[in-house]
Amino acid sequence: MPEPAVGVIGATGAVGTVELDLLAERGYEDVRAFASERSAGTRVTFGSRELEVELASPDTLSDLDLCFFSVGTAASAELVPAAVENGAVCVDKSSAFRLAEGIPLVVPEVNARRADEHEGIVANPNCSTIQLVCVLEPLRRAAGLRRVRVATYQSASGAGDASMKRLLESRPDEVSVTMDWPLEGDEFEEESKLREETRKILELPELAFIANCVRVPVLVGHCQAIWVETEQVLAPDDARDVLASADSIRLADPASAPYEAVGGDDVLVGRIRRDPTAANGLVLFTACDNLRKGAALNAIQIAELLLEDERVVADDRHLRAV
Amino acid sequence: MPEPAVGVIGATGAVGTVELDLLAERGYEDVRAFASERSAGTRVTFGSRELEVELASPDTLSDLDLCFFSVGTAASAELVPAAVENGAVCVDKSSAFRLAEGIPLVVPEVNARRADEHEGIVANPNCSTIQLVCVLEPLRRAAGLRRVRVATYQSASGAGDASMKRLLESRPDEVSVTMDWPLEGDEFEEESKLREETRKILELPELAFIANCVRVPVLVGHCQAIWVETEQVLAPDDARDVLASADSIRLADPASAPYEAVGGDDVLVGRIRRDPTAANGLVLFTACDNLRKGAALNAIQIAELLLEDERVVADDRHLRAV
Repeated sequence: MPEPAVGVIGATGAVGTVELDLLAERGYEDVRAFASERSAGTRVTFGSRELEVELASPDTLSDLDLCFFSVGTAASAELVPAAVENGAVCVDKSSAFRLAEGIPLVVPEVNARRADEHEGIVANPNCSTIQLVCVLEPLRRAAGLRRVRVATYQSASGAGDASMKRLLESRPDEVSVTMDWPLEGDEFEEESKLREETRKILELPELAFIANCVRVPVLVGHCQAIWVETEQVLAPDDARDVLASADSIRLADPASAPYEAVGGDDVLVGRIRRDPTAANGLVLFTACDNLRKGAALNAIQIAELLLEDERVVADDRHLRAV
Repeated sequence: MPEPAVGVIGATGAVGTVELDLLAERGYEDVRAFASERSAGTRVTFGSRELEVELASPDTLSDLDLCFFSVGTAASAELVPAAVENGAVCVDKSSAFRLAEGIPLVVPEVNARRADEHEGIVANPNCSTIQLVCVLEPLRRAAGLRRVRVATYQSASGAGDASMKRLLESRPDEVSVTMDWPLEGDEFEEESKLREETRKILELPELAFIANCVRVPVLVGHCQAIWVETEQVLAPDDARDVLASADSIRLADPASAPYEAVGGDDVLVGRIRRDPTAANGLVLFTACDNLRKGAALNAIQIAELLLEDERVVADDRHLRAV
């Protein structure tokens, strides 16, 4: 297989940096880095060498087979269609296309089969959604899902570089939990994203679902307390077995899980116990590196699905290098 | 009314320090400070003057009308009965006596009437319990409670001075959420305390209740995401009205609530909305200064109930100064 020409757009940001690290680790060689005017011309690390950052524009995003976008929603809305037009398949991490009809929203462990329905764009879900559906899908397969409630403990890196910088410059006695998302009616945009993306990925459009999202003064690593009610009985021990054998899940001691998740590729799950207040109720606590599995790693896993899948090649506008 | 002789035991700790501040603010004058051997002989600030810290022992805790204990469970178990024997009424903030039969566990806004049933000891609940029942009680009065789920975001100060010190000495990139409580079966001791204390205070021994407790790297101020199902329908607007007129509750903008709660006396409540996944379901988010209303302030409010209540004077072993 010829080496795909890869573009990382948003290469100087928190997620873009991790994307470059993961691509280097996995042996990709033909990689270009792009960013907005502010960072164009600077250099970023890629494995043992450096890349000059190119300006991302509808014109410059050409001669690429595969693009990883880690930029804001407005920038994605402008640049992703241009990159597709220029011949690339794009994995986009913004919310610009996630809920659009006909655009696959993919977490490979859950709905890999949807990736090959793309027409140039595959959307990468919100970091909290990825972490959640990796845990919900095995439970759904085992016992069906009736109702999901989730309380999040989201790190500053999920809000981007400025939030990370602000936290790094704060004293421990200056910080608090925050809720920095725009309101949509009586819920945060983040909460409705989490619900609608989960419903789309699980293909359960009516799933009873409610989230309460909170940002905590932690640099990297999201946690979630999840209350699930299943359709059939699922004892905590059985839930543990089901999760232990699921892809990208690792059972972990709750006392160490939040720390251990950072830098790793798995969603760590612990505290699996009965919710005695509900029929078929379970409670779990999970931790995940929001920059890796929650973003950059999931995007690469999507791309590797596309690269593996020969059906994609039928349309020669896309993934020309395969 | 003669000035009561007050002892603050654990006077050098996070809660004891706030207790002294609040007593000074409220005009108490005959106040003595006590601590363990490690701190005895040091001095603490009390209003515009300083107090020498006395050693807390079964012998030294005498000639006191009212004692505020903010020490560990083992120390309370030893010293509280001695202070009572020596003639004081004790408000104890440890978990030593909270669930003991016949010992009132009091949050004045909720069950003030229980305070006068004491026989020398009134227990002050866990900080998370106080914050929670202040919100649950008005909802219960309006519509009954069927089921409660709570996810906590607890600050380091709830774990005592060593945790505060550790956080203050940490860099922002070194901290994470933690779960530092002992396990009791499949739940943390903190979670079973929260359930059993809530049931005792609300006098709902069968209340369907489940908590997931998490410590966040914040110095002061606890938050809670609460899912409540009421017996009767209670629209979010009605819940808001009910809470707005409840004692020690203040409706607040969620974006600022966690910060505003610190240093204040109220439980701040925001994000009151319907939980569409449950019949009569509501979701709320609350914030509270765990050292003040969650501990030192609640204890003073209990003491002031006792000082006001003439029925207490009938037994002259207690509150002799009243």
